[in-house]
Amino acid sequence: MTAAAWGREEFEAKLRERGRAYHIHHPFNVMLNSGRATPAQIRGWVANRYYYQINIPVKDAAIIANCDEREVRRNWVQRILDHDGYGEDAGGIDSWLRLAEAVGLTRAAVESLAEVRPGVRFAVDAYVNFARRAPWPESVCASLTELFAPEIHQQRLATWPQHYPWIEPAGLKYFQSRVSLARRDVEFGLATTLARFRTRAEQERALEILQFKLDVLWQMNDAMALAYGVTP
Amino acid sequence: MTAAAWGREEFEAKLRERGRAYHIHHPFNVMLNSGRATPAQIRGWVANRYYYQINIPVKDAAIIANCDEREVRRNWVQRILDHDGYGEDAGGIDSWLRLAEAVGLTRAAVESLAEVRPGVRFAVDAYVNFARRAPWPESVCASLTELFAPEIHQQRLATWPQHYPWIEPAGLKYFQSRVSLARRDVEFGLATTLARFRTRAEQERALEILQFKLDVLWQMNDAMALAYGVTP
Repeated sequence: MTAAAWGREEFEAKLRERGRAYHIHHPFNVMLNSGRATPAQIRGWVANRYYYQINIPVKDAAIIANCDEREVRRNWVQRILDHDGYGEDAGGIDSWLRLAEAVGLTRAAVESLAEVRPGVRFAVDAYVNFARRAPWPESVCASLTELFAPEIHQQRLATWPQHYPWIEPAGLKYFQSRVSLARRDVEFGLATTLARFRTRAEQERALEILQFKLDVLWQMNDAMALAYGVTP
Repeated sequence: MTAAAWGREEFEAKLRERGRAYHIHHPFNVMLNSGRATPAQIRGWVANRYYYQINIPVKDAAIIANCDEREVRRNWVQRILDHDGYGEDAGGIDSWLRLAEAVGLTRAAVESLAEVRPGVRFAVDAYVNFARRAPWPESVCASLTELFAPEIHQQRLATWPQHYPWIEPAGLKYFQSRVSLARRDVEFGLATTLARFRTRAEQERALEILQFKLDVLWQMNDAMALAYGVTP
Protein backbone atom coordinates (compact mmCIF):
# COMPACT_ATOMS: atom_id res chain seq x y z
CA MET A 1 0.00 0.00 0.00
CA THR A 2 1.08 3.56 -0.64
CA ALA A 3 1.56 6.12 2.09
CA ALA A 4 -1.05 8.87 2.46
CA ALA A 5 -0.19 12.30 1.17
CA TRP A 6 0.90 14.86 3.75
CA GLY A 7 -1.51 17.66 4.49
CA ARG A 8 -0.61 21.06 3.08
CA GLU A 9 0.85 22.37 6.34
CA GLU A 10 2.83 19.25 7.03
CA PHE A 11 4.23 19.23 3.50
CA GLU A 12 5.23 22.89 3.79
CA ALA A 13 6.86 22.20 7.16
CA LYS A 14 8.87 19.36 5.63
CA LEU A 15 10.07 21.64 2.85
CA ARG A 16 11.06 24.32 5.36
CA GLU A 17 12.87 21.77 7.54
CA ARG A 18 15.32 21.26 4.70
CA GLY A 19 16.66 24.71 5.50
CA ARG A 20 19.00 22.92 7.88
CA ALA A 21 21.09 22.08 4.80
CA TYR A 22 21.04 25.62 3.40
CA HIS A 23 24.49 27.02 2.77
CA ILE A 24 23.89 29.66 5.41
CA HIS A 25 25.41 26.93 7.63
CA HIS A 26 28.39 26.21 5.37
CA PRO A 27 31.73 26.99 7.06
CA PHE A 28 32.73 29.26 4.16
CA ASN A 29 29.52 31.28 4.46
CA VAL A 30 29.72 31.38 8.25
CA MET A 31 33.21 32.77 7.88
CA LEU A 32 32.04 35.44 5.42
CA ASN A 33 29.21 36.61 7.65
CA SER A 34 31.09 36.53 10.95
CA GLY A 35 33.81 38.90 9.78
CA ARG A 36 36.67 36.43 9.48
CA ALA A 37 37.06 36.60 5.71
CA THR A 38 40.06 38.25 4.09
CA PRO A 39 39.58 40.58 1.13
CA ALA A 40 40.88 37.77 -1.11
CA GLN A 41 38.25 35.37 0.21
CA ILE A 42 35.47 37.89 -0.29
CA ARG A 43 36.69 38.65 -3.80
CA GLY A 44 36.86 34.95 -4.57
CA TRP A 45 33.29 34.51 -3.40
CA VAL A 46 31.99 37.48 -5.41
CA ALA A 47 33.80 36.38 -8.59
CA ASN A 48 32.63 32.78 -8.33
CA ARG A 49 29.07 33.55 -7.33
CA TYR A 50 28.86 35.78 -10.42
CA TYR A 51 28.66 32.61 -12.49
CA TYR A 52 25.52 31.67 -10.58
CA GLN A 53 24.07 35.14 -11.07
CA ILE A 54 24.50 35.18 -14.84
CA ASN A 55 22.92 31.76 -15.17
CA ILE A 56 19.76 32.63 -13.24
CA PRO A 57 17.92 34.32 -16.14
CA VAL A 58 19.05 31.53 -18.49
CA LYS A 59 17.61 28.99 -16.04
CA ASP A 60 14.40 31.00 -15.74
CA ALA A 61 14.04 31.23 -19.52
CA ALA A 62 14.47 27.44 -19.68
CA ILE A 63 11.58 27.09 -17.23
CA ILE A 64 9.37 29.35 -19.36
CA ALA A 65 10.42 27.45 -22.48
CA ASN A 66 9.07 24.28 -20.83
CA CYS A 67 5.82 25.81 -19.65
CA ASP A 68 2.58 25.76 -21.60
CA GLU A 69 0.62 27.74 -19.00
CA ARG A 70 0.46 31.40 -19.87
CA GLU A 71 -0.40 32.57 -16.36
CA VAL A 72 2.68 30.83 -14.99
CA ARG A 73 4.89 32.32 -17.70
CA ARG A 74 3.49 35.78 -17.02
CA ASN A 75 4.54 35.44 -13.40
CA TRP A 76 7.90 33.78 -13.99
CA VAL A 77 9.15 36.23 -16.62
CA GLN A 78 9.42 38.85 -13.87
CA ARG A 79 12.49 36.99 -12.64
CA ILE A 80 14.22 37.46 -15.97
CA LEU A 81 13.37 41.16 -15.91
CA ASP A 82 14.70 41.44 -12.35
CA HIS A 83 18.04 39.84 -13.13
CA ASP A 84 18.73 41.10 -16.63
CA GLY A 85 17.12 44.47 -15.98
CA TYR A 86 14.28 46.02 -17.93
CA GLY A 87 13.87 49.56 -19.18
CA GLU A 88 15.53 51.94 -16.70
CA ASP A 89 16.35 49.14 -14.24
CA ALA A 90 19.88 47.85 -14.82
CA GLY A 91 18.97 44.60 -13.06
CA GLY A 92 20.45 42.19 -10.55
CA ILE A 93 23.44 41.06 -12.60
CA ASP A 94 24.51 44.67 -12.95
CA SER A 95 24.07 45.12 -9.18
CA TRP A 96 26.35 42.14 -8.65
CA LEU A 97 28.99 43.75 -10.87
CA ARG A 98 28.72 46.87 -8.73
CA LEU A 99 29.27 44.66 -5.68
CA ALA A 100 32.34 43.29 -7.45
CA GLU A 101 33.69 46.81 -7.93
CA ALA A 102 32.91 47.64 -4.30
CA VAL A 103 35.11 44.76 -3.12
CA GLY A 104 37.97 45.79 -5.40
CA LEU A 105 37.45 43.74 -8.54
CA THR A 106 37.05 45.07 -12.06
CA ARG A 107 33.95 44.29 -14.11
CA ALA A 108 36.14 42.91 -16.87
CA ALA A 109 37.92 40.49 -14.53
CA VAL A 110 34.64 39.17 -13.17
CA GLU A 111 32.99 38.98 -16.58
CA SER A 112 35.94 36.97 -17.91
CA LEU A 113 34.92 34.13 -15.53
CA ALA A 114 38.65 33.39 -15.17
CA GLU A 115 38.30 33.01 -11.41
CA VAL A 116 35.33 30.61 -11.53
CA ARG A 117 36.31 27.25 -10.02
CA PRO A 118 35.30 24.10 -11.92
CA GLY A 119 33.35 22.88 -8.88
CA VAL A 120 31.29 26.06 -8.93
CA ARG A 121 30.78 25.87 -12.68
CA PHE A 122 29.64 22.23 -12.61
CA ALA A 123 27.21 22.86 -9.76
CA VAL A 124 25.62 25.84 -11.51
CA ASP A 125 25.53 23.99 -14.82
CA ALA A 126 23.80 21.06 -13.10
CA TYR A 127 21.07 23.44 -11.98
CA VAL A 128 20.62 25.01 -15.43
CA ASN A 129 20.57 21.60 -17.09
CA PHE A 130 17.97 20.42 -14.61
CA ALA A 131 15.76 23.37 -15.56
CA ARG A 132 16.25 22.65 -19.26
CA ARG A 133 15.05 19.07 -18.94
CA ALA A 134 12.69 18.84 -15.99
CA PRO A 135 8.93 19.46 -16.21
CA TRP A 136 8.47 23.09 -15.16
CA PRO A 137 6.82 22.39 -11.79
CA GLU A 138 9.98 20.50 -10.76
CA SER A 139 12.11 23.51 -11.66
CA VAL A 140 9.77 25.76 -9.72
CA CYS A 141 10.20 23.44 -6.75
CA ALA A 142 13.98 23.67 -7.11
CA SER A 143 13.70 27.43 -6.71
CA LEU A 144 12.40 26.97 -3.16
CA THR A 145 15.82 27.58 -1.65
CA GLU A 146 14.43 31.13 -1.83
CA LEU A 147 12.53 30.20 1.33
CA PHE A 148 15.85 30.60 3.10
CA ALA A 149 17.35 33.43 1.02
CA PRO A 150 15.98 36.51 2.78
CA GLU A 151 17.75 35.47 5.99
CA ILE A 152 21.14 35.02 4.33
CA HIS A 153 20.87 38.36 2.56
CA GLN A 154 19.80 40.10 5.76
CA GLN A 155 22.73 38.52 7.57
CA ARG A 156 25.07 40.01 4.98
CA LEU A 157 23.43 43.41 5.27
CA ALA A 158 23.63 43.26 9.07
CA THR A 159 27.24 42.10 9.38
CA TRP A 160 29.26 43.18 6.37
CA PRO A 161 29.26 46.96 6.97
CA GLN A 162 30.76 46.55 10.46
CA HIS A 163 33.14 43.69 9.63
CA TYR A 164 34.31 44.96 6.27
CA PRO A 165 34.33 48.76 6.40
CA TRP A 166 36.63 48.71 3.36
CA ILE A 167 33.71 47.61 1.16
CA GLU A 168 31.87 50.59 -0.30
CA PRO A 169 28.35 50.33 1.25
CA ALA A 170 26.55 51.11 -2.04
CA GLY A 171 27.92 47.82 -3.31
CA LEU A 172 25.58 45.93 -0.98
CA LYS A 173 22.48 47.10 -2.84
CA TYR A 174 22.03 43.67 -4.44
CA PHE A 175 21.41 42.01 -1.06
CA GLN A 176 18.94 44.76 -0.15
CA SER A 177 16.86 44.29 -3.28
CA ARG A 178 16.83 40.51 -3.01
CA VAL A 179 15.32 40.48 0.48
CA SER A 180 11.93 41.67 -0.79
CA LEU A 181 12.18 40.09 -4.26
CA ALA A 182 13.00 36.65 -2.85
CA ARG A 183 9.99 36.94 -0.50
CA ARG A 184 7.70 37.82 -3.40
CA ASP A 185 9.12 35.11 -5.67
CA VAL A 186 8.97 32.32 -3.14
CA GLU A 187 5.27 32.92 -2.46
CA PHE A 188 4.48 31.84 -6.01
CA GLY A 189 6.99 29.00 -5.98
CA LEU A 190 5.71 27.62 -2.70
CA ALA A 191 2.03 27.88 -3.69
CA THR A 192 2.81 26.14 -6.98
CA THR A 193 4.75 23.34 -5.30
CA LEU A 194 2.07 22.76 -2.68
CA ALA A 195 -0.59 22.67 -5.43
CA ARG A 196 1.21 20.51 -8.01
CA PHE A 197 2.91 17.88 -5.86
CA ARG A 198 -0.14 16.13 -4.47
CA THR A 199 0.50 12.44 -3.87
CA ARG A 200 2.91 11.26 -1.22
CA ALA A 201 5.29 10.07 -3.93
CA GLU A 202 5.19 13.49 -5.60
CA GLN A 203 5.72 15.22 -2.28
CA GLU A 204 8.73 13.05 -1.56
CA ARG A 205 10.04 13.85 -5.03
CA ALA A 206 9.65 17.56 -4.22
CA LEU A 207 11.82 17.13 -1.14
CA GLU A 208 14.46 15.38 -3.25
CA ILE A 209 14.41 18.22 -5.78
CA LEU A 210 14.79 20.81 -3.05
CA GLN A 211 17.68 18.78 -1.63
CA PHE A 212 19.32 18.73 -5.08
CA LYS A 213 19.16 22.53 -5.23
CA LEU A 214 20.51 22.81 -1.68
CA ASP A 215 23.36 20.54 -2.78
CA VAL A 216 24.10 22.87 -5.72
CA LEU A 217 24.53 25.84 -3.38
CA TRP A 218 26.46 23.82 -0.81
CA GLN A 219 28.81 22.40 -3.44
CA MET A 220 29.57 25.91 -4.68
CA ASN A 221 30.68 26.76 -1.16
CA ASP A 222 32.72 23.55 -0.86
CA ALA A 223 34.59 24.46 -4.04
CA MET A 224 35.25 27.99 -2.80
CA ALA A 225 36.36 26.78 0.64
CA LEU A 226 38.85 24.47 -1.06
CA ALA A 227 40.13 27.24 -3.33
CA TYR A 228 40.34 30.08 -0.82
CA GLY A 229 40.47 28.28 2.52
CA VAL A 230 38.36 28.95 5.58
CA THR A 231 39.94 31.40 8.01
CA PRO A 232 39.43 29.91 11.48
CA MET B 1 38.81 28.53 -52.79
CA THR B 2 35.90 29.87 -50.84
CA ALA B 3 33.51 32.47 -52.20
CA ALA B 4 33.80 36.03 -50.88
CA ALA B 5 31.25 37.18 -48.34
CA TRP B 6 28.43 39.34 -49.66
CA GLY B 7 28.46 42.98 -48.65
CA ARG B 8 25.92 44.03 -46.05
CA GLU B 9 23.46 45.44 -48.58
CA GLU B 10 23.71 42.49 -50.91
CA PHE B 11 23.22 40.05 -48.02
CA GLU B 12 20.17 41.97 -46.81
CA ALA B 13 18.77 42.02 -50.37
CA LYS B 14 19.19 38.25 -50.61
CA LEU B 15 17.33 37.78 -47.34
CA ARG B 16 14.51 40.05 -48.53
CA GLU B 17 14.30 38.24 -51.88
CA ARG B 18 13.20 35.15 -49.99
CA GLY B 19 9.92 36.95 -49.41
CA ARG B 20 8.81 35.40 -52.68
CA ALA B 21 8.22 32.20 -50.68
CA TYR B 22 6.31 33.93 -47.88
CA HIS B 23 2.88 32.45 -47.25
CA ILE B 24 1.31 35.72 -48.32
CA HIS B 25 1.45 34.00 -51.73
CA HIS B 26 -0.05 30.70 -50.55
CA PRO B 27 -3.41 29.93 -52.22
CA PHE B 28 -5.08 29.51 -48.83
CA ASN B 29 -3.89 32.93 -47.68
CA VAL B 30 -4.71 34.57 -51.03
CA MET B 31 -8.22 33.18 -50.65
CA LEU B 32 -8.52 34.56 -47.09
CA ASN B 33 -7.42 38.05 -48.08
CA SER B 34 -9.37 38.29 -51.32
CA GLY B 35 -12.74 37.68 -49.69
CA ARG B 36 -13.40 34.17 -50.98
CA ALA B 37 -13.18 32.36 -47.66
CA THR B 38 -16.24 30.90 -45.99
CA PRO B 39 -16.81 31.42 -42.26
CA ALA B 40 -15.74 27.79 -41.75
CA GLN B 41 -12.45 28.41 -43.55
CA ILE B 42 -11.76 31.54 -41.53
CA ARG B 43 -12.60 29.73 -38.31
CA GLY B 44 -10.33 26.86 -39.31
CA TRP B 45 -7.49 29.29 -39.94
CA VAL B 46 -7.98 31.12 -36.64
CA ALA B 47 -8.19 27.89 -34.61
CA ASN B 48 -5.11 26.37 -36.26
CA ARG B 49 -3.01 29.48 -36.22
CA TYR B 50 -3.69 29.70 -32.47
CA TYR B 51 -1.27 26.83 -32.02
CA TYR B 52 1.44 28.97 -33.61
CA GLN B 53 0.52 31.93 -31.39
CA ILE B 54 0.78 30.01 -28.12
CA ASN B 55 4.14 28.59 -29.10
CA ILE B 56 5.75 31.94 -29.88
CA PRO B 57 6.62 32.86 -26.27
CA VAL B 58 7.84 29.32 -25.61
CA LYS B 59 10.09 29.61 -28.67
CA ASP B 60 11.31 33.03 -27.52
CA ALA B 61 12.07 31.71 -24.04
CA ALA B 62 14.08 28.89 -25.65
CA ILE B 63 16.13 31.52 -27.49
CA ILE B 64 16.80 33.39 -24.25
CA ALA B 65 17.67 30.13 -22.52
CA ASN B 66 20.38 29.60 -25.16
CA CYS B 67 21.76 33.13 -24.99
CA ASP B 68 24.63 34.20 -22.76
CA GLU B 69 24.52 37.86 -23.85
CA ARG B 70 22.55 39.96 -21.44
CA GLU B 71 21.93 42.81 -23.87
CA VAL B 72 20.37 40.41 -26.36
CA ARG B 73 18.20 38.82 -23.67
CA ARG B 74 17.05 42.25 -22.48
CA ASN B 75 15.84 42.99 -25.99
CA TRP B 76 14.36 39.59 -26.76
CA VAL B 77 12.33 39.28 -23.56
CA GLN B 78 10.07 42.05 -24.88
CA ARG B 79 8.61 39.51 -27.29
CA ILE B 80 7.55 37.27 -24.41
CA LEU B 81 5.94 40.24 -22.69
CA ASP B 82 4.16 41.21 -25.93
CA HIS B 83 2.66 37.77 -26.50
CA ASP B 84 1.93 36.61 -22.97
CA GLY B 85 1.03 40.08 -21.78
CA TYR B 86 2.59 41.99 -18.91
CA GLY B 87 0.95 44.02 -16.18
CA GLU B 88 -2.20 45.66 -17.57
CA ASP B 89 -1.52 44.41 -21.11
CA ALA B 90 -3.37 41.15 -21.74
CA GLY B 91 -0.98 40.36 -24.60
CA GLY B 92 -1.08 38.99 -28.12
CA ILE B 93 -2.36 35.50 -27.30
CA ASP B 94 -5.33 37.07 -25.57
CA SER B 95 -5.88 39.31 -28.62
CA TRP B 96 -5.92 36.19 -30.77
CA LEU B 97 -8.59 34.65 -28.55
CA ARG B 98 -10.64 37.82 -29.01
CA LEU B 99 -10.23 37.38 -32.77
CA ALA B 100 -11.46 33.82 -32.32
CA GLU B 101 -14.58 35.09 -30.54
CA ALA B 102 -15.08 37.73 -33.25
CA VAL B 103 -15.21 35.01 -35.93
CA GLY B 104 -17.68 32.94 -33.92
CA LEU B 105 -15.52 30.52 -31.98
CA THR B 106 -15.42 30.08 -28.22
CA ARG B 107 -12.24 30.54 -26.26
CA ALA B 108 -12.63 27.07 -24.81
CA ALA B 109 -12.93 25.43 -28.24
CA VAL B 110 -9.78 27.18 -29.47
CA GLU B 111 -7.83 26.55 -26.28
CA SER B 112 -8.69 22.84 -26.49
CA LEU B 113 -6.55 22.64 -29.68
CA ALA B 114 -9.04 20.04 -30.93
CA GLU B 115 -9.15 21.68 -34.36
CA VAL B 116 -5.37 21.86 -34.84
CA ARG B 117 -4.33 19.72 -37.81
CA PRO B 118 -1.31 17.43 -37.35
CA GLY B 119 0.45 19.17 -40.27
CA VAL B 120 0.12 22.50 -38.48
CA ARG B 121 1.24 21.01 -35.19
CA PHE B 122 4.34 19.36 -36.67
CA ALA B 123 5.37 22.53 -38.49
CA VAL B 124 5.08 24.68 -35.38
CA ASP B 125 6.82 22.05 -33.27
CA ALA B 126 9.66 21.96 -35.80
CA TYR B 127 10.15 25.68 -35.28
CA VAL B 128 10.09 25.44 -31.48
CA ASN B 129 12.49 22.49 -31.52
CA PHE B 130 14.82 24.41 -33.80
CA ALA B 131 14.88 27.26 -31.29
CA ARG B 132 15.56 24.85 -28.42
CA ARG B 133 18.62 23.39 -30.10
CA ALA B 134 20.11 25.99 -32.42
CA PRO B 135 22.67 28.58 -31.32
CA TRP B 136 20.64 31.71 -30.56
CA PRO B 137 21.79 33.77 -33.59
CA GLU B 138 20.33 31.06 -35.84
CA SER B 139 16.99 31.33 -34.07
CA VAL B 140 17.11 35.09 -34.39
CA CYS B 141 17.71 34.62 -38.10
CA ALA B 142 14.70 32.31 -38.31
CA SER B 143 12.54 35.12 -36.95
CA LEU B 144 13.26 37.19 -40.07
CA THR B 145 9.98 36.18 -41.69
CA GLU B 146 8.93 39.26 -39.72
CA LEU B 147 10.45 41.22 -42.62
CA PHE B 148 7.34 40.25 -44.53
CA ALA B 149 4.79 40.26 -41.71
CA PRO B 150 3.69 43.92 -41.68
CA GLU B 151 2.42 43.57 -45.26
CA ILE B 152 0.35 40.46 -44.55
CA HIS B 153 -1.20 42.04 -41.45
CA GLN B 154 -1.96 45.25 -43.34
CA GLN B 155 -3.56 43.25 -46.10
CA ARG B 156 -5.86 41.62 -43.54
CA LEU B 157 -6.72 44.99 -42.03
CA ALA B 158 -7.43 46.45 -45.48
CA THR B 159 -9.54 43.63 -46.85
CA TRP B 160 -11.29 41.77 -44.05
CA PRO B 161 -13.70 44.51 -42.91
CA GLN B 162 -15.17 44.87 -46.42
CA HIS B 163 -15.12 41.17 -47.33
CA TYR B 164 -16.24 39.80 -44.01
CA PRO B 165 -18.61 42.32 -42.42
CA TRP B 166 -19.87 39.54 -40.15
CA ILE B 167 -16.56 39.64 -38.22
CA GLU B 168 -16.73 42.06 -35.31
CA PRO B 169 -14.09 44.73 -36.22
CA ALA B 170 -12.65 44.89 -32.68
CA GLY B 171 -11.49 41.33 -33.24
CA LEU B 172 -8.88 42.55 -35.74
CA LYS B 173 -6.88 44.39 -33.08
CA TYR B 174 -4.19 41.70 -33.12
CA PHE B 175 -3.25 42.50 -36.72
CA GLN B 176 -3.16 46.21 -35.91
CA SER B 177 -0.77 45.79 -33.02
CA ARG B 178 1.53 43.43 -34.93
CA VAL B 179 2.16 45.90 -37.78
CA SER B 180 4.26 48.18 -35.58
CA LEU B 181 5.60 45.45 -33.25
CA ALA B 182 6.84 43.33 -36.17
CA ARG B 183 8.61 46.38 -37.61
CA ARG B 184 10.30 47.08 -34.29
CA ASP B 185 11.23 43.42 -33.73
CA VAL B 186 12.65 42.82 -37.16
CA GLU B 187 15.03 45.76 -36.87
CA PHE B 188 16.88 43.96 -34.10
CA GLY B 189 16.67 40.56 -35.80
CA LEU B 190 17.98 41.91 -39.09
CA ALA B 191 20.82 43.89 -37.50
CA THR B 192 21.82 40.81 -35.50
CA THR B 193 21.75 38.52 -38.53
CA LEU B 194 23.77 40.95 -40.66
CA ALA B 195 26.32 41.29 -37.86
CA ARG B 196 26.66 37.63 -36.82
CA PHE B 197 26.60 35.82 -40.16
CA ARG B 198 29.80 37.16 -41.66
CA THR B 199 31.47 34.61 -43.94
CA ARG B 200 29.87 33.55 -47.20
CA ALA B 201 29.21 30.09 -45.72
CA GLU B 202 27.49 31.67 -42.72
CA GLN B 203 25.45 33.96 -44.96
CA GLU B 204 24.32 31.02 -47.04
CA ARG B 205 23.41 29.20 -43.85
CA ALA B 206 21.31 32.23 -42.85
CA LEU B 207 19.38 31.98 -46.12
CA GLU B 208 18.75 28.29 -45.46
CA ILE B 209 17.47 29.05 -41.98
CA LEU B 210 15.13 31.74 -43.29
CA GLN B 211 13.91 29.28 -45.90
CA PHE B 212 13.24 26.71 -43.16
CA LYS B 213 11.05 29.23 -41.33
CA LEU B 214 9.27 30.17 -44.55
CA ASP B 215 8.63 26.44 -45.04
CA VAL B 216 7.12 26.23 -41.55
CA LEU B 217 4.58 28.94 -42.35
CA TRP B 218 3.90 27.58 -45.84
CA GLN B 219 3.38 24.04 -44.53
CA MET B 220 0.86 25.34 -42.00
CA ASN B 221 -1.11 26.75 -44.92
CA ASP B 222 -0.76 23.54 -46.93
CA ALA B 223 -2.26 21.59 -44.03
CA MET B 224 -5.11 24.05 -43.67
CA ALA B 225 -5.81 24.10 -47.42
CA LEU B 226 -6.05 20.32 -47.35
CA ALA B 227 -8.35 20.33 -44.34
CA TYR B 228 -10.67 23.19 -45.32
CA GLY B 229 -10.23 23.40 -49.08
CA VAL B 230 -9.49 26.49 -51.15
CA THR B 231 -12.61 28.21 -52.47
CA PRO B 232 -11.90 29.08 -56.11
